[in-house]
Amino acid sequence: MSERDGRVVVALDVGGTGMKCALIRPDGAVVHTERHPTGADRGAEAVVDTILTVADGLIDTARTAGLTPTALGIVVPGIVDQTRGVAVWSANIGFRDVPLRDLAADRLGLPTALGHDVRAGGLAEARLGAGRDCGHVLFVAIGTGIAAAHVVAAAAATGAHGAAGELGHILVRPGGPRCGCGRSGCLEAIASASAVARRYTALATGTTGNADTTPDGGAAGPTVVTAAEVAGRAAAGEELATRVWREAVEALADGLATAQALYDVQTIVLGGGLAQAGPGLFDPLRTALRERLTFHREPRLVPAALGDEAGCLGAALLALDQLEDS
Amino acid sequence: MSERDGRVVVALDVGGTGMKCALIRPDGAVVHTERHPTGADRGAEAVVDTILTVADGLIDTARTAGLTPTALGIVVPGIVDQTRGVAVWSANIGFRDVPLRDLAADRLGLPTALGHDVRAGGLAEARLGAGRDCGHVLFVAIGTGIAAAHVVAAAAATGAHGAAGELGHILVRPGGPRCGCGRSGCLEAIASASAVARRYTALATGTTGNADTTPDGGAAGPTVVTAAEVAGRAAAGEELATRVWREAVEALADGLATAQALYDVQTIVLGGGLAQAGPGLFDPLRTALRERLTFHREPRLVPAALGDEAGCLGAALLALDQLEDS
Repeated sequence: MSERDGRVVVALDVGGTGMKCALIRPDGAVVHTERHPTGADRGAEAVVDTILTVADGLIDTARTAGLTPTALGIVVPGIVDQTRGVAVWSANIGFRDVPLRDLAADRLGLPTALGHDVRAGGLAEARLGAGRDCGHVLFVAIGTGIAAAHVVAAAAATGAHGAAGELGHILVRPGGPRCGCGRSGCLEAIASASAVARRYTALATGTTGNADTTPDGGAAGPTVVTAAEVAGRAAAGEELATRVWREAVEALADGLATAQALYDVQTIVLGGGLAQAGPGLFDPLRTALRERLTFHREPRLVPAALGDEAGCLGAALLALDQLEDS
Repeated sequence: MSERDGRVVVALDVGGTGMKCALIRPDGAVVHTERHPTGADRGAEAVVDTILTVADGLIDTARTAGLTPTALGIVVPGIVDQTRGVAVWSANIGFRDVPLRDLAADRLGLPTALGHDVRAGGLAEARLGAGRDCGHVLFVAIGTGIAAAHVVAAAAATGAHGAAGELGHILVRPGGPRCGCGRSGCLEAIASASAVARRYTALATGTTGNADTTPDGGAAGPTVVTAAEVAGRAAAGEELATRVWREAVEALADGLATAQALYDVQTIVLGGGLAQAGPGLFDPLRTALRERLTFHREPRLVPAALGDEAGCLGAALLALDQLEDS
C-alpha cells in the first residue's frame, strides 16, 4: 500500500515556446512541477533530445524523493497519431513524423503515451475539471489559435488521422481575413486572442493613421495591444474595441453553434487566454449562442477549471490509461 | 442450426410520407419488404398505431413463412434519444416525446431498438455499404434536408441529446437564404435538393418574369423543376442551372470541409436524392473540397451503396446490436 502510494507518472506538455512538466499521482494530485524552454529554433532533433533529457531528470527527481515513476505521458500540439505514437505535424515545434512515443519508451524504459495537447487538456477538464460528470464535453482552447477536443465517455476523439477538433479552421466568414492555414474566413482568423489583437491594431492604425497613438490616448502603441486589453477597453465602452470584441464574440458564437449542431454536447468548456476575459466574454457569448440555436439543446458554457495545468494533467491521464489498458 | 437460420429481425424506417419495412436476416440479407403510407396528417397517436400494426403484421408474415422474428428495430427522423428509446422531436411525423421503443416492446413482445433514420443509414453504409472497413465514416444524406451520421468503430455518434450530426444546420453563408429551422445561411437552405430546386425556380422566374416558361424553352414550368433537372441542365451547359448548381456544390464543399475539420474522417459517403447526380456532383465537389483543405487529410468522397434501403438495414443492425448487448 505504501509503495502504491508512492507511484507517480511523469507528464510533459510540450509547447512552441516552453514545456510544462510534472510528477502526478494516479489520483491527479500534482507533487512536483518544472518548466523548461522548448528551444524550437534548434530543430526537431534537438527538441526531442531536450524532451528526453527533461523526462529523464524528472524520473531521477521522483526516485530521489522516494517516489516510483510508473509511466510517461507527453503531449504536443499539431496533428498527433496517438495510436501509432507519432507526432505527425507540429508546425510550432518543427516536428514531422517523429515517433516520439517509441523514442521515449526505448530511452527511458517506461510505458509511454503520446497525445495531443488540446485533446489532453479536454480530457483533463472532462474528467477532473469543469466538465466533470457531463458525459459529452467540448473543450475549446482560445489563445494564439483555436482548437477543440470532443470528449465522450471520458475519451477524446482523435479522428482518423489524429486531426479531429480543428475548430479554429472552420469557415465562419466567407471572404474574411486570411488565416495562418492559408484559407480565408476561418474562425481562428477572427476570434483567436491574436486575431482580436491584430484586428484592433489594424483598425486603430487605419483610424488614426498613427501607429504610435492609441485611440484612448494611452501611451501603449496599438501595435502592442493584447486581446485582454481589447476586452478591457470594450468593457469600458470604447467604440473600436467594442466593435472588434463584438465581431469576435459573434464569430465565436457561429463557430460554437456549428460545433453544437455536429457534436451535440452537454457542456462547452472554454479555456486559453481569451477565456480569462470572464463575464466580458461569457455573458455576450451565451446570448449570441442562444440566438443561433433553433431546435438544438443549448449547451452549458463554462470557463475551464484547470488553467494551464490542463495539458500536463491530460498527459498524465493518457499515461495512466495506457497502464490500465496494458 | 436450422432454427438459427430462420431468425429474422423486423425493421421499420418511418419517414414523413411513407414507411419502408423489411424482414432481415442477421447477415443483412433482406428476405421480405413492404411499404406503407405514414399518414402523418392524422396525428402522432394514429401514426404510432400504424407503426405497431404494421410491425405486428410483419411478425405474422415472418411466422407464416416459418421464420422466427427475434427483435424489432424502428428508426424515425428528427431528434431521437436512443438510450431512453424516445422520439423526442420529429417535425415531419408530429412526434414529440413519444416513448416508441417501450410502446412497441410492450405491444409486440419483442426486444426493440429505436434509432434515428440518418444515423441508422450511416451505420448500415459504414458496416455493410460504401464505408466498409474505413473506421471513421461520415454519412451525409442530401434530400429535402441535409443530415449526417458520424460513425466510428461501427457505432454512430448520438450526441448528448440525440441530436448529433445536424450538418444541414451549420452556417455556411452568413446573411444567406432563410432555412426552415429559422436561421439564415444554413447549409440545408442552399445545398439540399429542395433548396437547389427552389433557388433555380426563383431565379428563373425573376429572369423571365414568367413562371410558365423555362429558360431553355421546355414545357415544364420552372416551379416544378427538380434538383436532378437542375443538375442535368447544368451538365448541358445552361447558364442559370450552372450557376445554381455551382453555388450548391461550393456551399456543400464548405460544409464538408467544416465537418472534416471537426470529425477528421477517412471516408465521406454521400447519399440521398442529390447524390444520384453522380459525377455531375462528385467531380466538382471533390475539386472544391480539395481547394478548401489545407493541412487536413483529404477524405475519400464516395456515393452511398445501399440506396433507400440503408435506413431499414440500419434499423435491423440496431435491433441486432441490442440483442447482442442484452
